[in-house]
Amino acid sequence: MTPKPLPLDEAHLRIEDGDTRIDRTILGCGARVLSQVIPATKSAGVSLWVPVGSRDEDEKTAGSTHFLEHLLFKGTRARSSLDIAIAFDSVGGESNAETAREHTAYWARVRDADLDMAIETLADMVSDSCLDETDFATERGVILDELAMGEDSPTETVHDAFQLAVHGDRPIGRPVGGTAQAISAVTRDDVWDHYQAHYGPASLIVAAAGNVDHDHVCERVQAALDASPWDERAVASPRPRRSTQRSAPAEHDRDITRRRDVTQAHVVIGCEGLPATDPKGPTMSVLLSILGGSMSSRLFQEVREKRGLAYTTYAFDVGYSDTGTFGMYAGCSPDNVAEVETIMRAQLHDLASDGPTDEEMTRVRGQVRGGVVLGLEDNWSRMMRLGRSEIIGRYRTIDESLSEFDAVDAAGVRELAASLASTLDCRALVLPET
Amino acid sequence: MTPKPLPLDEAHLRIEDGDTRIDRTILGCGARVLSQVIPATKSAGVSLWVPVGSRDEDEKTAGSTHFLEHLLFKGTRARSSLDIAIAFDSVGGESNAETAREHTAYWARVRDADLDMAIETLADMVSDSCLDETDFATERGVILDELAMGEDSPTETVHDAFQLAVHGDRPIGRPVGGTAQAISAVTRDDVWDHYQAHYGPASLIVAAAGNVDHDHVCERVQAALDASPWDERAVASPRPRRSTQRSAPAEHDRDITRRRDVTQAHVVIGCEGLPATDPKGPTMSVLLSILGGSMSSRLFQEVREKRGLAYTTYAFDVGYSDTGTFGMYAGCSPDNVAEVETIMRAQLHDLASDGPTDEEMTRVRGQVRGGVVLGLEDNWSRMMRLGRSEIIGRYRTIDESLSEFDAVDAAGVRELAASLASTLDCRALVLPET
Repeated sequence: MTPKPLPLDEAHLRIEDGDTRIDRTILGCGARVLSQVIPATKSAGVSLWVPVGSRDEDEKTAGSTHFLEHLLFKGTRARSSLDIAIAFDSVGGESNAETAREHTAYWARVRDADLDMAIETLADMVSDSCLDETDFATERGVILDELAMGEDSPTETVHDAFQLAVHGDRPIGRPVGGTAQAISAVTRDDVWDHYQAHYGPASLIVAAAGNVDHDHVCERVQAALDASPWDERAVASPRPRRSTQRSAPAEHDRDITRRRDVTQAHVVIGCEGLPATDPKGPTMSVLLSILGGSMSSRLFQEVREKRGLAYTTYAFDVGYSDTGTFGMYAGCSPDNVAEVETIMRAQLHDLASDGPTDEEMTRVRGQVRGGVVLGLEDNWSRMMRLGRSEIIGRYRTIDESLSEFDAVDAAGVRELAASLASTLDCRALVLPET
Repeated sequence: MTPKPLPLDEAHLRIEDGDTRIDRTILGCGARVLSQVIPATKSAGVSLWVPVGSRDEDEKTAGSTHFLEHLLFKGTRARSSLDIAIAFDSVGGESNAETAREHTAYWARVRDADLDMAIETLADMVSDSCLDETDFATERGVILDELAMGEDSPTETVHDAFQLAVHGDRPIGRPVGGTAQAISAVTRDDVWDHYQAHYGPASLIVAAAGNVDHDHVCERVQAALDASPWDERAVASPRPRRSTQRSAPAEHDRDITRRRDVTQAHVVIGCEGLPATDPKGPTMSVLLSILGGSMSSRLFQEVREKRGLAYTTYAFDVGYSDTGTFGMYAGCSPDNVAEVETIMRAQLHDLASDGPTDEEMTRVRGQVRGGVVLGLEDNWSRMMRLGRSEIIGRYRTIDESLSEFDAVDAAGVRELAASLASTLDCRALVLPET
């Protein structure tokens, strides 16, 4: 079984997924509405997505996508920032947003009875923000403080440096939040132009999960958009998805060291990873699990349990439309950086030469099955998964996920490990000042 | 309605709580087993608690409770550390632990079918750990790395300094993890003595929630303890709970500044707070919510929304058996520390002189009701709440919680704010090097 495609030219789609059902409707204006009914829940999660992220910025607008995300909470023509905060707080709901490299999402989690309010408020924020000059100036201070916090975080610093080492100094290689310099220089009108260029019905994805009725959600979204300034923008179909065509980075430095006044050193080694829709995705998940995804993984056992060299160590990947980032991380004493790096490389090379053991393959299959059951109990995760699925254009049912994992074999894991091991050319370090 | 007491001399207790039921059984050996059936779930959470925390350490054993928590994952006579990791990983479960000032808890979240395995494994870890000399030496390195990570975290640094400012240099005022110096000096036998002194059937609390059967859980816990070395320790009743008698700290420095090479400054101001079982607890919750518990709170609006001075600001409290910690936090530019501190003080003083508005009281009641419904959907939170309830000796049903919140009035919030404002004598700062 392979994941269900989510084509942009089908007005109505329905996917059965175990004891739940996914419905997707493309509204007349081009906005996409997805919902998933979760039995026996009294809550609802709803999220509004636009497929715009820090990748879509140029030098001048670096950090603007994240700045804009903040500004959308500052008020619309109909609602002040306090009104927005009160709307969710007064019903005990939660609301927040995330900016990533290829998307921005605004979400709320509320009792089912408060779903209409959540849709209306989020749709208003996303479609009719004022970007008031005074709010803009105030929020710039908040963003600069957030960037300072990141600057003071050695783990954030090492991961930002690693992304740069893998992808070079172009939008995908840069930090999502931009730099203090760019944020200090950007104007309200720059961010307004970014907003007008990227937000609109053709870009909008609404994903809801929980005790929700699909037709009702569609109706409420339609009503909110009818009342918005977007009503005047005639569009009929969703914006095409991002190209999956890889463009190689220019020659750049793949070994980056940042000096900080830290007690602990941080090291990430890795290379370019798989795109989000790569067919080898399930193989990568199995590889990561065995290499560094749990307490029984090779990195955890070799680095922490046997040698006590680090408190935290793991392997990770992030998939984008056309590329990805693969890495292994550890935080350790500055004296142990060389040893830890040697162990990390050796673990990947061992996996490349000998492959996973039968015991590891059995364990990881059990891990996936158990994890699926536990993951099903969380509405918020399901809602976010639904939104991400529409962004990348594929939805995996639970059965499809499990059968894909069952189809991964030791030889496939070994091959992928060999391919990663042969291009393990990127490194980022955070070290104490000399 | 007032919270249900959990007396230590009743062998069987049953509490109805909405559509769920709590059962508690004290086994013959003195161990307490609590369970809560959550309808319509396919998972189970189980946690083993001992009422020992960093408060129970002396200078020599500072950090030993947390060190011990790590060591219990390193292996028993029957299981290696890898066996323990594999037990949970191979079923896709999660397992972890937390050490606090007054308790230590070990927990797992698994499919309901894997509950027996989780009980058996956790009970073995807690009752029959080897504390092998080699493992001890290895794990010391891991702990030192974890402490270095905390040392490099400005927020952790400011909160540790604040706890010291409020409670002075005695066990409750010190960091939970101890210091690098103490951890480097402590011996395996010191930690072994700490283990033998504090872990045993009379101290053990087992709390399970999800798709569980109470009698079955009791039976599995009994079987696990029968197979453990604890079997030989004859006890008949649970260890008495901690005294709620407050002992005032000696004179000490209540204004502590730490210098670090940071971009962002961190400030916490506050004072001694309420004990965990203080009848004014619900009033404190309402006060915290209005002062700094959400996006519509006074601190968030005044510090972040109106002035853009900080990305993060909030108010908090932690309750212990005999005392508590109350504080207001912000991370901001070093230039703005004085202004932020002035605003934080002014917000508390305003609440003390004028009390909350009717609108704030209405909002916080809606917030509590909505939050209760959303909180009910998380097995893990319910399990942890159950364990904590037994530690402090009271269980609040949902109806009791709601009626207690409904009984909080504006005058009560104003009075509590006045009492806190009149003793706002503690401060901790993390500032850049001069």
